[in-house]
Amino acid sequence: MPAISLKGKNMPESPIRKLVPFAEDAKKRGHKVYHLNIGQPDIHTPQVALDAIKNNTLEVLAYSRSEGSEEYRTKIAAYYHRNDIQVKYDDIIVTTGGSEALLFAIGSITDPGDEVIIPEPFYANYNGFATASGVTVVPVVSKIENNFALPPIEEFEKLISPKTKAILICNPGNPTGYLYSKDEIKKLAAIVKKHDLFLIADEVYREFAYDGEDHYSVMQEPGLEQYAIMIDSVSKRYSMCGARIGCIVSKNKEVIGTALKFAQARLSPPTFAQMASEAALDTPQSYFDAVIEEYVERRNTLVAELEKIDGVRVAKPKGAFYCIAELPVADADDFARWLLEEFHLNGETIMVAPAAGFYSTKGIGLDQVRIAYVLKKEDLVRSVEILKSALEAYKS
Amino acid sequence: MPAISLKGKNMPESPIRKLVPFAEDAKKRGHKVYHLNIGQPDIHTPQVALDAIKNNTLEVLAYSRSEGSEEYRTKIAAYYHRNDIQVKYDDIIVTTGGSEALLFAIGSITDPGDEVIIPEPFYANYNGFATASGVTVVPVVSKIENNFALPPIEEFEKLISPKTKAILICNPGNPTGYLYSKDEIKKLAAIVKKHDLFLIADEVYREFAYDGEDHYSVMQEPGLEQYAIMIDSVSKRYSMCGARIGCIVSKNKEVIGTALKFAQARLSPPTFAQMASEAALDTPQSYFDAVIEEYVERRNTLVAELEKIDGVRVAKPKGAFYCIAELPVADADDFARWLLEEFHLNGETIMVAPAAGFYSTKGIGLDQVRIAYVLKKEDLVRSVEILKSALEAYKS
Repeated sequence: MPAISLKGKNMPESPIRKLVPFAEDAKKRGHKVYHLNIGQPDIHTPQVALDAIKNNTLEVLAYSRSEGSEEYRTKIAAYYHRNDIQVKYDDIIVTTGGSEALLFAIGSITDPGDEVIIPEPFYANYNGFATASGVTVVPVVSKIENNFALPPIEEFEKLISPKTKAILICNPGNPTGYLYSKDEIKKLAAIVKKHDLFLIADEVYREFAYDGEDHYSVMQEPGLEQYAIMIDSVSKRYSMCGARIGCIVSKNKEVIGTALKFAQARLSPPTFAQMASEAALDTPQSYFDAVIEEYVERRNTLVAELEKIDGVRVAKPKGAFYCIAELPVADADDFARWLLEEFHLNGETIMVAPAAGFYSTKGIGLDQVRIAYVLKKEDLVRSVEILKSALEAYKS
Repeated sequence: MPAISLKGKNMPESPIRKLVPFAEDAKKRGHKVYHLNIGQPDIHTPQVALDAIKNNTLEVLAYSRSEGSEEYRTKIAAYYHRNDIQVKYDDIIVTTGGSEALLFAIGSITDPGDEVIIPEPFYANYNGFATASGVTVVPVVSKIENNFALPPIEEFEKLISPKTKAILICNPGNPTGYLYSKDEIKKLAAIVKKHDLFLIADEVYREFAYDGEDHYSVMQEPGLEQYAIMIDSVSKRYSMCGARIGCIVSKNKEVIGTALKFAQARLSPPTFAQMASEAALDTPQSYFDAVIEEYVERRNTLVAELEKIDGVRVAKPKGAFYCIAELPVADADDFARWLLEEFHLNGETIMVAPAAGFYSTKGIGLDQVRIAYVLKKEDLVRSVEILKSALEAYKS
């Protein structure tokens, strides 16, 4: 029998995925499950994007250009200009989701055995992309008591080795909801320039910055042009997760030229989804205003309700639509499974993502869960009621 | 300045791509260019697939399941049953094009430094996927004088080392148009079983088998269940290259389980394209009958016209929609560029793919080009007229 690869064996399973069968069983028992575990928003996709698809007149669903059409990339560049990010269409390669943009970035700047430093907790799939590329994730712990702010820069410096090729951040953060300040980005800029590293910033939640704070992109930092690689996606911005359209952006021509070769090998990003994404750029500001208002209310509701529970600590998110909560349990993984397998409150329960899967360091975050506030307020209130009642029952 | 990766430097550029600027210049000079260089068919996408998109009622363009919806996979399995391939829905993972299926296959069964044996000439992007995965392509030469039939099995055996993980074939072949016989597949089956290798078969051109010959899939070969991995795609079957939907199929549960982890990391294949692909499975047989008839006529026309030119040798394709032609030139790369830069016949010229890019061994195939017969017959006739006239002019 032929053997599968070591790399394949090491590929991490999605930390959320393993709970799915238990959620399915709960539903089979007739229980309602509130899904706080995934970043799939319930927000409608902008009509202008949906209409572009319904009204399309294609007769041959042909390949697009490997780097995305010049017209779409020109419109993306104009969107960035409106966000004070000065890039041109040829600094952009359209990708199949932010996922592929990350794969292209990692492939363009790392070889097997190289290292990438990432503040943890981090988006769990970074582990998958690193493993697929033979790259080692070197974590720097950020802490719930600091709202998951950037760890002291000396902590990064200690970890830099000749194998280090990049620092990777997610801003605003999934799963932390943390929004890096301009000062923090400047600190990161200084360290990557000092050590000749790339700074990869996953900025797919750019619009989801709350409380009047501005998002500061790595692409805005003067002098960082040759070091900064931005990962972007339409998934969250327009509630178009299923489109699978993103992009990789850099002023470093060698990076974009290399990423293009990866893009050519896979031929092109999906054509229908590019049409929808191009149309989505005409989404009126009123759509975003309403969405942001909705998320801020949801966040405020969720955090306020969680803080009422004894022993629960919450990092108040300033962006994205996740928050990490520390629960009075020893093993959130066991608790999350128990919620689905054993518990219900009048036939209802909740599904949360155990946070350990977002850490690379073993043994930390064991008492934390990630909660996505992608449900409407009354469902969030009900979910926290269920959580409170569950925590009491779980204790005994 | 941070450095890009060795892997990135080694990523091959598309062999077709480098001629694109010259084709664009020719068009700017007002010349008409017949595109014989790419596998983008002019055939209409089935109406049933286009209608599924136009009539969709999605309000939230959400993620699909990482492995594709159970409904779609069940329908794919039924399509395979109709083609005498007995697989179940859970032997299938839906991918973003055949490209991603290949990446998942390579990732699941190879580690950096491993080797994959491929008969050459082969689909050029296999080189890109191998390089991206740190895998070495070991070529076995197949020859135009044998119509690019399977090389003697001893040639494979000589190349097998402890690092060899798989043999990869494309059947029917791009760029050769060769259709492997049942006997040839049985020979390959015997060798992979003997040496514990996987046999990966890219069968995206399955329907394009001509002259009454049957396509014999690696999935039909008894006893090969644990060794066979099939790569598939809707791109050519339904003229839906821009959908970017394919799949990886294997009865080997470990392979599918491992590929699923790669699939989870990138979240999901594109949703709109899956809807179109699912609907495309209801395409009536009459569509295929007409398409095959058209391609057979095109092939016959192209081959007959090419054979009229002195010094041109053609391998008569039995499948797909490509053929390799040997031209009376020393350097087909230079000739292809010259066709675009210097030549025109009454304002018209042709773009062909120099075949050297489809070989891994340096220095062979230099006098060959790949011609895709994806244009209508009169355009093919005119294209060969231009070729004939060009060859005369190029000689002097």
